[in-house]
Amino acid sequence: MTDIEGALSRADQNLDSSLEKLFELLRIKSISTDPAFKADCKQAAEWLVSYLTGLGFDASLRETPGHPMVVAHHAAGVAGAPHVLFYGHYDVQPVDPIELWENDPFSPTIKEVAAGHKVLTGRGTSDDKGQLMTFVEACRAYKETNGTLPIEITILFEGEEESGSPSLKPFLEANAAELKADYALVCDTGMWDRQTPAIAAALRGLVGEEVIVTAASRDLHSGLYGGAAANPIHILSSILAGLHDDSGRVTLPGFYDGVEETPENIKQSWETLGRSAETFLSDIGLSVPAGEKGRSVLEMTWARPTAEVNGIQGGYTGEGFKTVIASKASAKVSFRLVGKQDPAAIRESFRTYVRSKLPADCTAEFHPHGASPAIQLSYDSPFLSKAKEALSDEWPQPAVVIGMGGSIPIVGDFQKMLGMESLLVGFGLADDRIHSPNEKYELVSFHKGIRSWIRILNALAA
Amino acid sequence: MTDIEGALSRADQNLDSSLEKLFELLRIKSISTDPAFKADCKQAAEWLVSYLTGLGFDASLRETPGHPMVVAHHAAGVAGAPHVLFYGHYDVQPVDPIELWENDPFSPTIKEVAAGHKVLTGRGTSDDKGQLMTFVEACRAYKETNGTLPIEITILFEGEEESGSPSLKPFLEANAAELKADYALVCDTGMWDRQTPAIAAALRGLVGEEVIVTAASRDLHSGLYGGAAANPIHILSSILAGLHDDSGRVTLPGFYDGVEETPENIKQSWETLGRSAETFLSDIGLSVPAGEKGRSVLEMTWARPTAEVNGIQGGYTGEGFKTVIASKASAKVSFRLVGKQDPAAIRESFRTYVRSKLPADCTAEFHPHGASPAIQLSYDSPFLSKAKEALSDEWPQPAVVIGMGGSIPIVGDFQKMLGMESLLVGFGLADDRIHSPNEKYELVSFHKGIRSWIRILNALAA
Repeated sequence: MTDIEGALSRADQNLDSSLEKLFELLRIKSISTDPAFKADCKQAAEWLVSYLTGLGFDASLRETPGHPMVVAHHAAGVAGAPHVLFYGHYDVQPVDPIELWENDPFSPTIKEVAAGHKVLTGRGTSDDKGQLMTFVEACRAYKETNGTLPIEITILFEGEEESGSPSLKPFLEANAAELKADYALVCDTGMWDRQTPAIAAALRGLVGEEVIVTAASRDLHSGLYGGAAANPIHILSSILAGLHDDSGRVTLPGFYDGVEETPENIKQSWETLGRSAETFLSDIGLSVPAGEKGRSVLEMTWARPTAEVNGIQGGYTGEGFKTVIASKASAKVSFRLVGKQDPAAIRESFRTYVRSKLPADCTAEFHPHGASPAIQLSYDSPFLSKAKEALSDEWPQPAVVIGMGGSIPIVGDFQKMLGMESLLVGFGLADDRIHSPNEKYELVSFHKGIRSWIRILNALAA
Repeated sequence: MTDIEGALSRADQNLDSSLEKLFELLRIKSISTDPAFKADCKQAAEWLVSYLTGLGFDASLRETPGHPMVVAHHAAGVAGAPHVLFYGHYDVQPVDPIELWENDPFSPTIKEVAAGHKVLTGRGTSDDKGQLMTFVEACRAYKETNGTLPIEITILFEGEEESGSPSLKPFLEANAAELKADYALVCDTGMWDRQTPAIAAALRGLVGEEVIVTAASRDLHSGLYGGAAANPIHILSSILAGLHDDSGRVTLPGFYDGVEETPENIKQSWETLGRSAETFLSDIGLSVPAGEKGRSVLEMTWARPTAEVNGIQGGYTGEGFKTVIASKASAKVSFRLVGKQDPAAIRESFRTYVRSKLPADCTAEFHPHGASPAIQLSYDSPFLSKAKEALSDEWPQPAVVIGMGGSIPIVGDFQKMLGMESLLVGFGLADDRIHSPNEKYELVSFHKGIRSWIRILNALAA
């Protein structure tokens, strides 16, 4: 007989030491996209191996051509119990612009932002170290109370999620037998709101692309050449400005191939969630929805594809002024995909479009940064129903099944390469400022997140 | 009786030591636009004061709110001789991107690029330290031979030319009596080609403007907000793309007010110079003139106004990829002016245009970076004729009177504030890569530049 109440109160008693362990992990600067932090990434992986080993997992660090993987196994207390693969990532986003952080991003703190309302501050608190530790600490409390775990658990932590996961597919392929389970648990998502946990059933895909436009063979003085020489910033601006039409639709030929309208009943269930454009945007200082005209913001962010410029650079950008005509200008562009949009076709359509807009004496160079199709999970899985019930027991409001604007390419890889469906549960909030300065995670997300996983583990064993 | 041949051969004998002195000045990193190099700018000014004092000038360093001025006086050998004000600048452009330099920009060398063809390498060799030293070394050779100078000379060197000369006008105003002369000599221009010296009679003006577009109150995750939240890079791209129409004309309302067509006879004289679009552009790896359709490249760069984006920045621009929607994006934009275009009106028209393109929930912030109207010098000054003859005596080909694409705001200031016309003579070449990596100055520009000034000083005394 499983002692679920015992495990829950054990988690409550453990909270301070759980936070101490989380803060140890948060202090490691595991920024995967910047080669300067390679050693820090390895250190984070080693920390996890050591901690999981201490909890009784058979844990190991696995080298890859990039940052290492962490794999850990723990048997179930009962024979024939289900087997889940838990996935998270220990790498974090860069911290620039550093001057906008109120606290050092790698010196985590607990901050009381209002009476009784505490948050954990620092890079990775929400994405994804805080989240993955909710699961680890749930296992710890469960095991400390019951001596074992209710289901068989394999853990996979990667260190390249924020930089396109280049090593993930080869690793899944090479270790398919070891990693295959009945279901995957992916903890990189959010709550619907502070009271309402959520399970995500639809995820947008992603195509990342960098384009570098080259005009003259060197930087030019705009006095000597201005007016006669091609300016790559003008060309690039014109290319990017042409990506959307006046109604907010993406103009690339074939872009909407494979995009289906969301069924009316789903759209209606989203409408009851009460997220208006005003409430959604006012939190970030905006008021006018910028996407396709005639769509709700939930449709825009969950069910419609986008083209976004994530970065642009060219010419002189330092202090003061420099009357230069740059030789090159570059942009990082990403496309969020839905339905059956084909990542490869969209990349090719973008490249063809860019080339068609280049003057005859200019060139463009392209660098791909990841590609994943959109995901639609099955709404009727028993696994999902059990988890929904367990979550509803823990939180003030029942759990809701939602869509998601972001991409979690691993979900597609698990489906395609290991034949596993994923359960997407997480405790982040929309205002956690992930990928931005002043990232935070609610203390209640961490605490009730741990309790939620205890309930889910227990429910899945039944 | 002046010994002109003696002074010329003295300049030849001095050449090695003249180069040594120039290299001392070039080694000082006097980048005016970057506050990190403030002390270096002062050091360059001090070096000049010390050297000019050694040549017998009454030289002094004059503090300003920015980088200091250098002012030096020397009487004429004969009473009643004309008085000229020689102007140059000791500050230089930044050196980024540093990785494209073949030699350290601040370790000048003499490089033999082909048999018998030597160039001086380094930042400031051409713009403007090498040029100003041609005049200083001419004074030295003349004085060493004749014991005095043929005309009265005041020298003004500033240290903020590459950063908009914020201290110049107040300094001219406060020191008008001391600086006023019969004419100004400005040495910041170029030759027509290797054989043909040039005097510039028309110069484009300049308006510099920085615009920062703000959308959301913080950086956003493009998965959570992409499709619904305004992206300032999209808005800025669209603004910049709209600055030109399909014929290459600038679209700002009122932009062409005050622009006159170049007289047919002037256009014809330019046509005889044989600068085709092919020859002009092939040198920089281009082939298609990018400016207004139906204009020659000399018109585009000398007689037509432009709008150029000199820098753009927004979002994530580091290694790898980051799926962020930036809060802000910025651009540095400059306008080259001709004829009677009004800098203030053009700045205002640009700002009005930008504001008209902003969504209701986004804002724009503007920072001005200098403004100067275009200049047209009188073609019939006797001063110009004497200088033209003196130059023609020194070089293989006779001197030509040309237009210039770049701005030299000081010429307008001298005209307006001191009532002086300027003679624009310099020995740079179009391929000197000023403002770019691998700036150089021809050894022959330096050597014959010194000899040219000896001839001009002598001619002006007659």
